[in-house]
Amino acid sequence: MLAVTILGNNSAVPAYDRHPTAQVVTLDEFLFLVDCGEGTQMQMAKYKIRRSRIQHIFISHLHGDHYFGLIGLITSLGLLGRDAPLHLYAPAALEQLIQLQLKVADTALPYPLHFHPLEAGPVLVSNDRFKVLCFPVSHRIPCWGFRFEQIKAPRRLNPDKARAHEVPSHFYDRLKWGEDYTTKDGKHIPNDWVTEPAAKGKVYAYSADTCYNDSLIEQVKGADLLYHETTYLKDLAERAAFRYHCTTHQAASIAQQAGVGRLLIGHFSSKYEKLDQFETEAKEVFPNTSLAIEGVSYRV
Amino acid sequence: MLAVTILGNNSAVPAYDRHPTAQVVTLDEFLFLVDCGEGTQMQMAKYKIRRSRIQHIFISHLHGDHYFGLIGLITSLGLLGRDAPLHLYAPAALEQLIQLQLKVADTALPYPLHFHPLEAGPVLVSNDRFKVLCFPVSHRIPCWGFRFEQIKAPRRLNPDKARAHEVPSHFYDRLKWGEDYTTKDGKHIPNDWVTEPAAKGKVYAYSADTCYNDSLIEQVKGADLLYHETTYLKDLAERAAFRYHCTTHQAASIAQQAGVGRLLIGHFSSKYEKLDQFETEAKEVFPNTSLAIEGVSYRV
Repeated sequence: MLAVTILGNNSAVPAYDRHPTAQVVTLDEFLFLVDCGEGTQMQMAKYKIRRSRIQHIFISHLHGDHYFGLIGLITSLGLLGRDAPLHLYAPAALEQLIQLQLKVADTALPYPLHFHPLEAGPVLVSNDRFKVLCFPVSHRIPCWGFRFEQIKAPRRLNPDKARAHEVPSHFYDRLKWGEDYTTKDGKHIPNDWVTEPAAKGKVYAYSADTCYNDSLIEQVKGADLLYHETTYLKDLAERAAFRYHCTTHQAASIAQQAGVGRLLIGHFSSKYEKLDQFETEAKEVFPNTSLAIEGVSYRV
Repeated sequence: MLAVTILGNNSAVPAYDRHPTAQVVTLDEFLFLVDCGEGTQMQMAKYKIRRSRIQHIFISHLHGDHYFGLIGLITSLGLLGRDAPLHLYAPAALEQLIQLQLKVADTALPYPLHFHPLEAGPVLVSNDRFKVLCFPVSHRIPCWGFRFEQIKAPRRLNPDKARAHEVPSHFYDRLKWGEDYTTKDGKHIPNDWVTEPAAKGKVYAYSADTCYNDSLIEQVKGADLLYHETTYLKDLAERAAFRYHCTTHQAASIAQQAGVGRLLIGHFSSKYEKLDQFETEAKEVFPNTSLAIEGVSYRV
């Protein structure tokens, strides 16, 4: 199961009860937090996201509407007695800032906080269940998007074929994880004779804050769900470019060119009270588009 | 008019929809912000406090539940195009932190932010309308309380007496501001012959986070309204002392010994869902006690 829950869908200045950017990505039993604007810990409480279950936090860039809530969350986790490690993937400069905030409060966290600079990317985490990559986007300051890939291991065993090739049943688990088998008399049984590929994992891509840039297409290609910012409606393309943001049509064009399954749009400018025009315009270019609404989970 | 509006009444970890510490003090046409926990700018929007009217912000100490919302507010004011100066009174270390946060965002504020370290106190602001002082309290890290004194200038002129002493009417304004008058033939008319003292201004004292300490009594003496923290109920005096906080009875005892007019209690621990016992216990010692409730304005 792969899903994304929106905690904040607004751009810089909170307005109309919309909050700055934060999302929770759920991948089976794993919870990832993607960006953490001010008030994210309150939004998590409101939408019954268990803070303690977060093990990985990804921060796209150091504009405040994407990270001002982080220090509060980190501190609260400590006050609540967390001892499990927390992994933070963010631009390198954030580490100094957090250390300074802890120092002035004379606070030591009771759990290990592992800092991973995004500059060292692109592979941030890779294991047999998921892979998270980052990719640069085009913003006023260094900024990264994230790509969450679900890995649907193990491979699917074909028991009839396994028996036919005389693989003993105690080896079946190892077959599922891709190993070949060699019989006692030295006969080699390649794994794919007796198994089939795992179901394809889902992919979620998050574009962070970015102006329109063709190079993004390659990075988000084939994603089942793409979140792309649409700070402005299509008539403000000039302002969008000037501020390193995108319009509805630009985001939808990226989705269309990258052949993604579905597009989720957010990071709405505070100048807009109503959002329906965002959906209308994006659908003109990419019909399978949804507005990112706070509190809603979007299944990938 | 002097009043305090509560924006956050909870201690460190937000809970039960209670927010970390923030208050707005209204003194006639002036608005002061006292502490600024995470989410303060959203609370200001919720309770229709106009952010742009704040000219002075006072931060008691550098535990996050008293300042994590500050950088968001400061940044939003900039994005909203503020050009009026903003005065920030806070522990000296906060300046470096704010500068670092602006630097990593490559952001310059479009308005002057004047930083005044509390270490230079005790008089933070003094003019003909109000005076704000800080005083040290007893917490795990350096922490200050604040005392807001309303000055009810000008003095009240007694026109009959002024005429009797032959003070010309063009000098009346100067009489109101306390000047003596000297007649053409050199006769000295002391100001208090022809004026009466201004109505006494009101005083609001804010104790910030503190353990029980007798020395506080002198600092908050005679305040019309005292806000004092009560993180715990009276049965947890040991825990309160260990964490440099107060119980209901301790706060009420300070109020009683200092002869204040009314006591407002807050900074409730997240362990308590219901608050009525706080009021009951404090009233056992100091009957004129109210709970600090978010969104409520308390007239001094």
